[in-house]
Amino acid sequence: MRIYDIIKKKRDGEELTTEEINYFVKNYTEGKIPDYQISALLMAIYFNKMNKRETIDLTRAMVNSGDIVDLSGIKGIKVDKHSTGGVGDTVTLILGPMIAACDVPFVKMSGRGLGHTGGTLDKLESINGFRVELTNEEFLRYTNNIKISICSQTANITPADKKLYSLRDVTATVENLSLIASSIMSKKLAIGSDAIILDVKVGNGAFMKNIDDAIHLAKEMVAIGTGYGRETIAIVSNMDEPLGKAIGNSLEIKEAIKTLKGNGPEDLFQLTLQLGTKLLLLVKKVEKEEEAKKLLEEIIDSGAAYNKFKELVKWQGGDVNQIENPELLPKAKYIIEVKSEKEGYIKSLNAEEIGKCALKLGAGRETMDSTIDLSAGIILNKKVDDRVMVGETLAQIHTNDISKGKDVEEDLKGLFEIGEKNKKSKKLIYGLVTKDRVEIY
Amino acid sequence: MRIYDIIKKKRDGEELTTEEINYFVKNYTEGKIPDYQISALLMAIYFNKMNKRETIDLTRAMVNSGDIVDLSGIKGIKVDKHSTGGVGDTVTLILGPMIAACDVPFVKMSGRGLGHTGGTLDKLESINGFRVELTNEEFLRYTNNIKISICSQTANITPADKKLYSLRDVTATVENLSLIASSIMSKKLAIGSDAIILDVKVGNGAFMKNIDDAIHLAKEMVAIGTGYGRETIAIVSNMDEPLGKAIGNSLEIKEAIKTLKGNGPEDLFQLTLQLGTKLLLLVKKVEKEEEAKKLLEEIIDSGAAYNKFKELVKWQGGDVNQIENPELLPKAKYIIEVKSEKEGYIKSLNAEEIGKCALKLGAGRETMDSTIDLSAGIILNKKVDDRVMVGETLAQIHTNDISKGKDVEEDLKGLFEIGEKNKKSKKLIYGLVTKDRVEIY
Repeated sequence: MRIYDIIKKKRDGEELTTEEINYFVKNYTEGKIPDYQISALLMAIYFNKMNKRETIDLTRAMVNSGDIVDLSGIKGIKVDKHSTGGVGDTVTLILGPMIAACDVPFVKMSGRGLGHTGGTLDKLESINGFRVELTNEEFLRYTNNIKISICSQTANITPADKKLYSLRDVTATVENLSLIASSIMSKKLAIGSDAIILDVKVGNGAFMKNIDDAIHLAKEMVAIGTGYGRETIAIVSNMDEPLGKAIGNSLEIKEAIKTLKGNGPEDLFQLTLQLGTKLLLLVKKVEKEEEAKKLLEEIIDSGAAYNKFKELVKWQGGDVNQIENPELLPKAKYIIEVKSEKEGYIKSLNAEEIGKCALKLGAGRETMDSTIDLSAGIILNKKVDDRVMVGETLAQIHTNDISKGKDVEEDLKGLFEIGEKNKKSKKLIYGLVTKDRVEIY
Repeated sequence: MRIYDIIKKKRDGEELTTEEINYFVKNYTEGKIPDYQISALLMAIYFNKMNKRETIDLTRAMVNSGDIVDLSGIKGIKVDKHSTGGVGDTVTLILGPMIAACDVPFVKMSGRGLGHTGGTLDKLESINGFRVELTNEEFLRYTNNIKISICSQTANITPADKKLYSLRDVTATVENLSLIASSIMSKKLAIGSDAIILDVKVGNGAFMKNIDDAIHLAKEMVAIGTGYGRETIAIVSNMDEPLGKAIGNSLEIKEAIKTLKGNGPEDLFQLTLQLGTKLLLLVKKVEKEEEAKKLLEEIIDSGAAYNKFKELVKWQGGDVNQIENPELLPKAKYIIEVKSEKEGYIKSLNAEEIGKCALKLGAGRETMDSTIDLSAGIILNKKVDDRVMVGETLAQIHTNDISKGKDVEEDLKGLFEIGEKNKKSKKLIYGLVTKDRVEIY
């Protein structure tokens, strides 16, 4: 088998065999095929696409390129959740404890933030002492005991994906559904959960800019998960504006705590509730949608979800005192209030640009080597469709660097588009994709 | 300017600006852009193509990447000829002396053979002492004195093309008209001739497999040459079977001598005559086609062309005695006669496969490092449309390795397809492309 022939075949629009896909993934990972041949192949895939079978094969080859995290030591039907990335997306920190409080084991290997999107591990590290690096033995034991653990990927998971993704990133070959779907799913499938729920973000702050593409990506990922024998569903949700009100690491922890106590922002809570509902149905914890919703609401009302979060923090070495007294979490020196100079309705609030403002404040990473400021960030007092008066606070900037804060103040003012009320009210969730059907809401 | 943006732009079907093309060619040649980004760009070009302006810009950028050979020291309108490569293509060695004998300076920087196609320099090196590596001063002086020189490219011509071609070769991005045309033309344009005639081969032994593609390539190259201010025309000719009867280095020198004396194979002579006719018209040596033909025929009949060849050999240090007594040229130890086992007409004679047989005998190079056997090769006694009887000789194999010879004998037998007479007789020349028009014959 020769990589040249594989490139040519895909270039000419033919289907690659399982053997050909295994060949190029394995040999590329092992450094036996140079980057320049794989980037040509990736561009050929960009143009001629991969069918479902090829995409599943590619995913499998990437899963098999590295370690597989065996979760069979955890009792019960283990669930995993993945978001394609957004701004202010604190769902994992709320959904995890809720699901675990329903006695369903929630195992989440998470990542760090990059660019304008945040990362769950960074957020958790706002809590003093919180250990995100667990050994296999630890996270298995923790999940068996308290039904939840959230940690980093210490194992050598999907090295093929890492290598391919780095190459795609610099060769304009990221934007292909099969490549995106297989990249995400390989990382999920290398961790042996039984059920996977995907939150596919769509909008200006997300990777997918339109609903059709997002539905396609959701279908592709559900097909891969299902083809791999995992119960997989996907929700397609709005990322035109940030989710919730907080953007920034300790700010989002505070928001998660509020939401777990039943006082969080409506959109953040509703999306988490929807994801939770679908998850409980998926793992057959309940039979009906209403039952699931009721159970999850009870778990919030009773404080069980909040207590589960405290338990998680405690088991992973974090300071529970900071959860009980969120004012003890890292706090920025300065808070700048961004005031409205206009009266009207918020028409739009570009999530990507707001994410970039948070990045500018130090809440995110420019590159994987950047250090982040855990206390920096933005609180949105007004969101799309809200009415605002002249002089009302649109947002708060939390910063340790007053000049950066002033810069961002200017940017933020421009990002709140104020005018007539939008004709169509915004939608939080666009659709649901299961192995059998696509529901558009 | 970022290479990433250039890749993305071409990927998205947009036109690259002159600056973008200059940027990537220059920085790639200087090693400032890695192979893996350029191979992705090349694949994007493969799919989304380049328009005429982009192709001319790419050609210019490649020309400017290296030295330009200044021919202004040569008096008269200097002509250059290029064939896209075939099997048994000895045209240059006949056309050059014919044109020079008409007092038109013929300056040819030639290449070596690779794969199943031969190279003019290798053929000339069958002659004892023949020097293909000339200094600038030498080939200018030779051409001024005897109107002809044929030498290797010693200058650092189009390093960008060399680098790009090597990359295309291993990334399945060779087969794009703009890339092929700009690669060929940049090498021609870096040598400052005034007029260029192109022989675009089409058929199973050529790079272009069908006439439409060959016409397209010819048009593209003529447009580039013309856009560059050079008189450029192209002939599209048949390479379904080898040209002439001889394949192999010293065998082709013998055939060239015969043809220059007026006793060569008809197809080889006719194609050379056509090219010569068009060239003489192009440089306005004569006004009418019939005049040109008459002049060229006279030059053969009078022995002027043959004498010019001897002069070329003499000036470049070769042994003229071998030209006068071709039996002194390198000779193989064994000659195997391939006999027909069938009666009928030759229906086809796959040029590429016959080229590969010659390669197997050592007449060509597998890689640029291979050494070649100057005396090895094949003489075709029968060609397409010829009648053959049982026991008649189809071909002669000239070899120094009897076991290789026996191998090739088997192969060759299979390559002579014998049967009913072909309904359509073969065509030697399919068309002519000038800057103003395309003539299909």
